[in-house]
Amino acid sequence: MNTTFLSDLLRSIAERGRANLSPTNIETMPAIADLARALVSRRGEATGLVLAREILAAWNGLDATGKRDFLIALVNDFGPDTVRLERAVERWRKEATQAALQEVHAAAEPRRQEVIRRLNLAPGGTAELVRMRETLFANQKQHPELDVLDEDFTHLFSSWFNPGFLVLQRINWSTPASILEKIIRYEAVHAIHDWDDLRRRIEPPDRRLFAFFHPQLIDDPLIFVQVALTDYVPDAIGPLLAEDREPCAPNKATTAVFYSISNCQKGLRGVSFGNFLIKHVVEELKRELPQLLVFVTLSPVPGFAGWLERERRSASPALAPATLTALGGLDDPSWVTSEATREQLRLALLAAAAAYVLSARTADNPTDPVARFHLGNGARLDRLNFLGDTSTKGLGQAHGLMVNYLYDLASIENNHEGFTEKGLIAASPAVRQHLREVPPRVPHFKPANTDTGGVTS
Amino acid sequence: MNTTFLSDLLRSIAERGRANLSPTNIETMPAIADLARALVSRRGEATGLVLAREILAAWNGLDATGKRDFLIALVNDFGPDTVRLERAVERWRKEATQAALQEVHAAAEPRRQEVIRRLNLAPGGTAELVRMRETLFANQKQHPELDVLDEDFTHLFSSWFNPGFLVLQRINWSTPASILEKIIRYEAVHAIHDWDDLRRRIEPPDRRLFAFFHPQLIDDPLIFVQVALTDYVPDAIGPLLAEDREPCAPNKATTAVFYSISNCQKGLRGVSFGNFLIKHVVEELKRELPQLLVFVTLSPVPGFAGWLERERRSASPALAPATLTALGGLDDPSWVTSEATREQLRLALLAAAAAYVLSARTADNPTDPVARFHLGNGARLDRLNFLGDTSTKGLGQAHGLMVNYLYDLASIENNHEGFTEKGLIAASPAVRQHLREVPPRVPHFKPANTDTGGVTS
Amino acid sequence: MNTTFLSDLLRSIAERGRANLSPTNIETMPAIADLARALVSRRGEATGLVLAREILAAWNGLDATGKRDFLIALVNDFGPDTVRLERAVERWRKEATQAALQEVHAAAEPRRQEVIRRLNLAPGGTAELVRMRETLFANQKQHPELDVLDEDFTHLFSSWFNPGFLVLQRINWSTPASILEKIIRYEAVHAIHDWDDLRRRIEPPDRRLFAFFHPQLIDDPLIFVQVALTDYVPDAIGPLLAEDREPCAPNKATTAVFYSISNCQKGLRGVSFGNFLIKHVVEELKRELPQLLVFVTLSPVPGFAGWLERERRSASPALAPATLTALGGLDDPSWVTSEATREQLRLALLAAAAAYVLSARTADNPTDPVARFHLGNGARLDRLNFLGDTSTKGLGQAHGLMVNYLYDLASIENNHEGFTEKGLIAASPAVRQHLREVPPRVPHFKPANTDTGGVTS
Amino acid sequence: MNTTFLSDLLRSIAERGRANLSPTNIETMPAIADLARALVSRRGEATGLVLAREILAAWNGLDATGKRDFLIALVNDFGPDTVRLERAVERWRKEATQAALQEVHAAAEPRRQEVIRRLNLAPGGTAELVRMRETLFANQKQHPELDVLDEDFTHLFSSWFNPGFLVLQRINWSTPASILEKIIRYEAVHAIHDWDDLRRRIEPPDRRLFAFFHPQLIDDPLIFVQVALTDYVPDAIGPLLAEDREPCAPNKATTAVFYSISNCQKGLRGVSFGNFLIKHVVEELKRELPQLLVFVTLSPVPGFAGWLERERRSASPALAPATLTALGGLDDPSWVTSEATREQLRLALLAAAAAYVLSARTADNPTDPVARFHLGNGARLDRLNFLGDTSTKGLGQAHGLMVNYLYDLASIENNHEGFTEKGLIAASPAVRQHLREVPPRVPHFKPANTDTGGVTS
Repeated sequence: MNTTFLSDLLRSIAERGRANLSPTNIETMPAIADLARALVSRRGEATGLVLAREILAAWNGLDATGKRDFLIALVNDFGPDTVRLERAVERWRKEATQAALQEVHAAAEPRRQEVIRRLNLAPGGTAELVRMRETLFANQKQHPELDVLDEDFTHLFSSWFNPGFLVLQRINWSTPASILEKIIRYEAVHAIHDWDDLRRRIEPPDRRLFAFFHPQLIDDPLIFVQVALTDYVPDAIGPLLAEDREPCAPNKATTAVFYSISNCQKGLRGVSFGNFLIKHVVEELKRELPQLLVFVTLSPVPGFAGWLERERRSASPALAPATLTALGGLDDPSWVTSEATREQLRLALLAAAAAYVLSARTADNPTDPVARFHLGNGARLDRLNFLGDTSTKGLGQAHGLMVNYLYDLASIENNHEGFTEKGLIAASPAVRQHLREVPPRVPHFKPANTDTGGVTS
Repeated sequence: MNTTFLSDLLRSIAERGRANLSPTNIETMPAIADLARALVSRRGEATGLVLAREILAAWNGLDATGKRDFLIALVNDFGPDTVRLERAVERWRKEATQAALQEVHAAAEPRRQEVIRRLNLAPGGTAELVRMRETLFANQKQHPELDVLDEDFTHLFSSWFNPGFLVLQRINWSTPASILEKIIRYEAVHAIHDWDDLRRRIEPPDRRLFAFFHPQLIDDPLIFVQVALTDYVPDAIGPLLAEDREPCAPNKATTAVFYSISNCQKGLRGVSFGNFLIKHVVEELKRELPQLLVFVTLSPVPGFAGWLERERRSASPALAPATLTALGGLDDPSWVTSEATREQLRLALLAAAAAYVLSARTADNPTDPVARFHLGNGARLDRLNFLGDTSTKGLGQAHGLMVNYLYDLASIENNHEGFTEKGLIAASPAVRQHLREVPPRVPHFKPANTDTGGVTS
Repeated sequence: MNTTFLSDLLRSIAERGRANLSPTNIETMPAIADLARALVSRRGEATGLVLAREILAAWNGLDATGKRDFLIALVNDFGPDTVRLERAVERWRKEATQAALQEVHAAAEPRRQEVIRRLNLAPGGTAELVRMRETLFANQKQHPELDVLDEDFTHLFSSWFNPGFLVLQRINWSTPASILEKIIRYEAVHAIHDWDDLRRRIEPPDRRLFAFFHPQLIDDPLIFVQVALTDYVPDAIGPLLAEDREPCAPNKATTAVFYSISNCQKGLRGVSFGNFLIKHVVEELKRELPQLLVFVTLSPVPGFAGWLERERRSASPALAPATLTALGGLDDPSWVTSEATREQLRLALLAAAAAYVLSARTADNPTDPVARFHLGNGARLDRLNFLGDTSTKGLGQAHGLMVNYLYDLASIENNHEGFTEKGLIAASPAVRQHLREVPPRVPHFKPANTDTGGVTS
Repeated sequence: MNTTFLSDLLRSIAERGRANLSPTNIETMPAIADLARALVSRRGEATGLVLAREILAAWNGLDATGKRDFLIALVNDFGPDTVRLERAVERWRKEATQAALQEVHAAAEPRRQEVIRRLNLAPGGTAELVRMRETLFANQKQHPELDVLDEDFTHLFSSWFNPGFLVLQRINWSTPASILEKIIRYEAVHAIHDWDDLRRRIEPPDRRLFAFFHPQLIDDPLIFVQVALTDYVPDAIGPLLAEDREPCAPNKATTAVFYSISNCQKGLRGVSFGNFLIKHVVEELKRELPQLLVFVTLSPVPGFAGWLERERRSASPALAPATLTALGGLDDPSWVTSEATREQLRLALLAAAAAYVLSARTADNPTDPVARFHLGNGARLDRLNFLGDTSTKGLGQAHGLMVNYLYDLASIENNHEGFTEKGLIAASPAVRQHLREVPPRVPHFKPANTDTGGVTS
């Protein structure tokens, strides 16, 4: 019968992952909490599978209020056994051994975690739990007591979705439509408009799309990155994605450009994959195309416009007065279309951008989330690109600014260490230079030959 | 390129799982402990993959002493942050909130666990960690301080090898030889002598072999069970496995006999799969052959001979004097071959066996490990089989006794609950009856027509 | 390495099938014909693979004229060895044995066939040869001498694409996009407009799409059929494909409707698959849904409007004068939109349609190609559906008429035999009845309650 | 459902290929011949699948006589339509066109071929037909009239098993046991004794085993070749297969030695795969290990001992008297074990061997079948190895002689052409030199240092 041993194995995983837990008619929250209590009792050891199925089916049948109440019950009724914890702390005070410490740890584990572990027994349980956490998010603001449950999820998901368990997979035009469809839906940076658009992202010889999968969510990517192979470091997204561009022959490419990274599963927030994804993809690309030299992003700066707005209104702005004055030009929405006003704004905007990415801080971290991500990975801030993204979204969130972060394997570790331990930001001299450049005094000065569509370097 | 999306995905998992971490020349234990320290530092976040590879390669290069020292270093140097724990306990005393409890739990987590989690990043890391725990076992007796590290492994492996992540796979003659070879090697109950013998266990229409796999150890089964389809409940293993038996047509079978369950990975001791395996297999078989009515084991009784030895020497034996007297016949090793002596021993041996499985206790649990396993799963002790296994091993460990445990789906939950909560043992009246049966007074009495090779019911 | 034995095997086939034979610079036709001569020489036995690659690469480099000339050279220069044939005929005259006849057959085989067989050695050769035949079609009208080469292709393709070698595959939303894209492109009956439209044909529970594949053209379907599961025999395509229809639960369906069959490979014209496809799909559906009772088509009548046009202009029409008169109403293109004119035309159009499918003949065969196909398969003409297809295409080719052909397994063989041997057309009484129905005299008669969108029976 | 599109496709092929056509109770040969008649009638077009199944089931139910009679009936009753053939010949006499020739070819096709083509429609039909031809072989000697049917099979199988349709697959320890088992069984040159022996042929890093598969016989190899990677050209099989040899690191290997080629399917006799297999394997190995320089066989000489026996008894022997005299030493079976007698025989045996492979002819071809095969592929006779195979089989069939044939890609085509067109045998000077070497006069001469176990060069 089953000649294809491993295919069958895989099929089993996939089918189980897709199992439907259709909502049943269990109506009241107490019932489901009781089931959860049974699930973590000794009885649950023998019947965990059945109970887990029932609980998840019951959960799916609950309305929003019922779901919220169940989550809150998990927090309130499934905490640690405090009597046991008291005793453990006592013992530790006396003994100060690792064994005593271990008992403190074990006693302090909330039974919520065991509930979650056992719910995972149900077919399709992992996917269901990921969605349960999304429901938690929806209630978290109103119910901050859910924070501890969120931590439980994070703790368990971090273990289950250990990067060692993830699988890197290239996505191309031979990938099942059901997965491609999700790529279209999940793309968060530069929207994929339709199937033809998707095809342009994955079929030309100079494009790659890689995704991370987990065996339990086999039909559903966790995160993916889009790559363009080029022979230069691009400073604008438009030409990079232009339909009529000349594709670069892969064996001629010198540069791999990561121009979009999208997380797919909201319910896995806080479980970090991006760092590993980029490093795996770098390895994969170097294996395929050993001549590649430069691994760089072309990234958005999602927080820039908002920060600049606050800065301009601030009583004690960080930017120099001359820069702020020059930035007044932004108030005329037509500034992008006129070469003259563009050039008046260029230096000021780049100076402001440099200040933003190098100095703006929120709770000790760079304010910009994309900067935080790449700098945290050990990348270097390499270049600021004036009008790198002239789409409505790009202008709206960052006045068109884009950034190249460079992944230089030799310095990643140092960069990362400096960043995480001392808050140092690795940046090229060119980026730092922007901080010192004064906007031109004479607003009507017009430089020659610069109407190149918004390119800096 | 990759038309076969999911096959590729699987192949990636499989190849990674097989990655070789060849020993490097890092020579001293301190070096590897330093690497482990780096691994759990903030720096390790960016370079975890590289560090994990290096540590595991270094580990493979260590000799037995070096390995032992590293394990001990993990215990001593990678415990929890006790200062943070002090503060957390303080806060909890004041607040008594779930959030405060959560912080106690987090603070009490030994950094060893983070070391293990991050080592798992390396390709092949999971398999390597399973083997690392085997090394731990080899040192545990001499170094009981390793117990806490063993608990760390158990905690993490229980999460990673959550039964929800396991995949049931039927093993047959089309299975890759590399996996079949492991089945031969791992079989722990009734040895498989060679490939022909294996074939007799998997190819006839009335045989099944099912194994659990984990995506990270894709080439290596975790546990497997062998099943015979029959139209009766067998009381002896010999005829069941006889080469010349008439195979039972699967669609005529009424009974599925689980006659051998073998755990494959020593390093996963304490992570329980057998319960789930049996229940999955029951489901699978019912799907394939809906007419099956009885799911029963034919099990060894590995502790019986040892217990009986102790009992016979005991100053205060649990067995009745008449029984003990009759059991004197065991001292003549030829008792098995003579019908007369067999029959003299039958009732006494069955009475002793009933006492053993129903009443013998070690730390509140049945002394017999197989009994513990099946009763804990909710099975019922159904029948004791006199001379069910006349192999050297069977006679040696249990004077030939075998047991049928019945998996009756309707009563599993009750049986399990009674067993785990009140220590009640579910047993058929026939088994209990043996307790009350007196061995025959007249030793030379010879019953008619009983020379059937050792069959009771 | 290769754990997944059969997947690898398949991958090899697939990759080889996709091998690119990029055009080389061999410029002149004689060169390629010389290569072909070498290919069928004894030398070609050792170097066939290399030569086949070279010839196909050279072929791809030829322009239209070069290709035509090569095909003609195949006819003229690669015929049978006539000297050997003379001798063989001579011997047969003398001997009249099977052996002598065999030699006539062998001697009469044109060397063209050996050229084609050896070209098939090249990776991707089969696909290339299928395309070569398409080029032949483009030249056949101008060069009727190519007919014999076409017969050679037909002979060899019939052997290679023996239905025993084809594989039935269900196409669904998990099928690779590269194959789905071809389904969209190849659909010949009811156009699939885009990916959403495709999805509506394959994803709802009451839809099926099955295709035949050949191992050598693994990425490319040969033929496919679209099926709707219903609980009635539909008489119009519009409602059957309506986006807002209520899907039929598969286990409630009584009827499988084959509403579209499309051949995919022009180069395989004359190699018949449709018959086998339908029968395989019937088997497959009965296995999945044993309760299905009726297997029926909802088919277009592509030749009806053209035939009727000729009929109405004919000096000796087959239709009755009253019918012809009534059909005058067709000249007003608005007839479809007015209930009154629709009803005036109904009986006349159905009478004409019955005459067309039952009696119109081209070279002894039914004129309608779809009728020829299904009747030849042994189906029965079951119902004529007035205004079954009100799309522009449906009105244009058949005044909206659609036909149900019934595949009744019990009578297929009889129907087929009657049809092929005596030209008998199996038809329901209802269809024959239309021949006898006279169009209404009173053109302004208006029946009640019939504005149902064009449904007859 | 079917995520794994191509795996499913493959599974379908595989399962169909394994379909069982269990014998039915149709008892008499006429019945099955009648079914065959129906199969090639027009009726058979619609019901071919059903009829083919029935005929093959009936065939399986026939005894040996019944089978023989059916095969003879195929010859006698399913020849070509001679009336049509007469007419076609007539027309050709008049027209002498390609179209007329084509009609002669078509008319001369025996209906037997259509019977075989249609039987192939049944699931598992191809495998069944291959076995049917084996039955034909068993009757062919007694019934030479079956020769024409054999030609029909050869003709069709050559088309179906066109090398373009075959798939090269590496066989290793992860291959399904069901296939490995067949490798053990089919090995025809150097017997594989058991699973451990097989493992030594496929698992060490310096061993390869490649097989050709056809999609219709997916579980069953057609032919396979065993390869040893070495850094020298071996002259004896014993050391090459020695269990305790030091494996050669693949990336250090300079030489690929084809030391065993086995055809698996008797029923495919006359359909030649070996040539393509070797060339594909050479390509595959060069892709994997580009440093490989030499592709050479270590081959048996199965006809040598028989030929030499005849030669020594011949009235007009081809060998020189001195050589024949020296060869008298062969009559003492202990010659192999004594160094002295070995050395006395060496030159004479090599001279005789050279005469055998270079000059012995059967019907214009080299008498030795292995020589015929490799020389026909374009290989060169490179070296004769005295006592290359000292197994019982090797001594029995060739007095221990083995031959290296060299596959030098640059000269394959020339060699092949010379061989097939002029009967020229490509051989190294060293081989030709043996013809001229006179056996030593002094029989008691004993060379120093030659007791090397039988190595020449």
